[in-house]
Amino acid sequence: MAFELDPRLARSSVELGRLGRCRVLLKDNAHFRWLLLVPEVEEGLTELHDLPDDLFREVCGSARELSAWVKQSFAVDKVNVAAIGNIVSQLHIHVAGRFQSDPAWPGTVWACEERRPFTPEELATIQAAFIARFGSV
Amino acid sequence: MAFELDPRLARSSVELGRLGRCRVLLKDNAHFRWLLLVPEVEEGLTELHDLPDDLFREVCGSARELSAWVKQSFAVDKVNVAAIGNIVSQLHIHVAGRFQSDPAWPGTVWACEERRPFTPEELATIQAAFIARFGSV
Repeated sequence: MAFELDPRLARSSVELGRLGRCRVLLKDNAHFRWLLLVPEVEEGLTELHDLPDDLFREVCGSARELSAWVKQSFAVDKVNVAAIGNIVSQLHIHVAGRFQSDPAWPGTVWACEERRPFTPEELATIQAAFIARFGSV
Repeated sequence: MAFELDPRLARSSVELGRLGRCRVLLKDNAHFRWLLLVPEVEEGLTELHDLPDDLFREVCGSARELSAWVKQSFAVDKVNVAAIGNIVSQLHIHVAGRFQSDPAWPGTVWACEERRPFTPEELATIQAAFIARFGSV
């Protein structure tokens, strides 16, 4: 199976690395610390509950690790974890670190139009922190 | 520990029953088939990743069962599974069955103001289906 990342996910984010059988992306929006966990599964598998048992457990465990990391590393106020997929059906789990000062608070990130791309320095810092915690590819 | 359901969750929903150490609520909005899974944990535990290992696995497994049940029983087009908690901090996991014809599609349920309460007959049908699948308290 040749896995291909949905171009809409690829376009709006930066790849940080891998976690098991998933890719980990960072949404390029500095208002948040918003990761995407993308299991490399076949195209038609769009519901989290349809993952095979072992991969379901792995994905939940990885989302948990990412969530704890985001909370601790970026001192966010809350983490929002979600599998939505109404627009981009390729299975992906949002792990969105939120600040009470962010432009969408207390609403969700999906309703927010505001965007500020990270600076190269910010991106390098986050990338380095990810590699320090989860290793490089 | 005396667990008390947050009054904002209680007010907007109907209790369907239990699943392990969680309560299962139905949001009283017939536009969706929107369940809430509420682990009976201490008040300060607001992040999904902070659940103890065994309860984390249980909650993920229960969310998976509910999601598969919602998809199959109500023929929804998509299930949105999420732990948000920006407004009501008491830990709760949304398992929201969505129709492409619902008033929020393809947006999320949280941005949607539209509400139609279930009729008593609709509620009774959903309650009976829940008990048939998951048992009564």
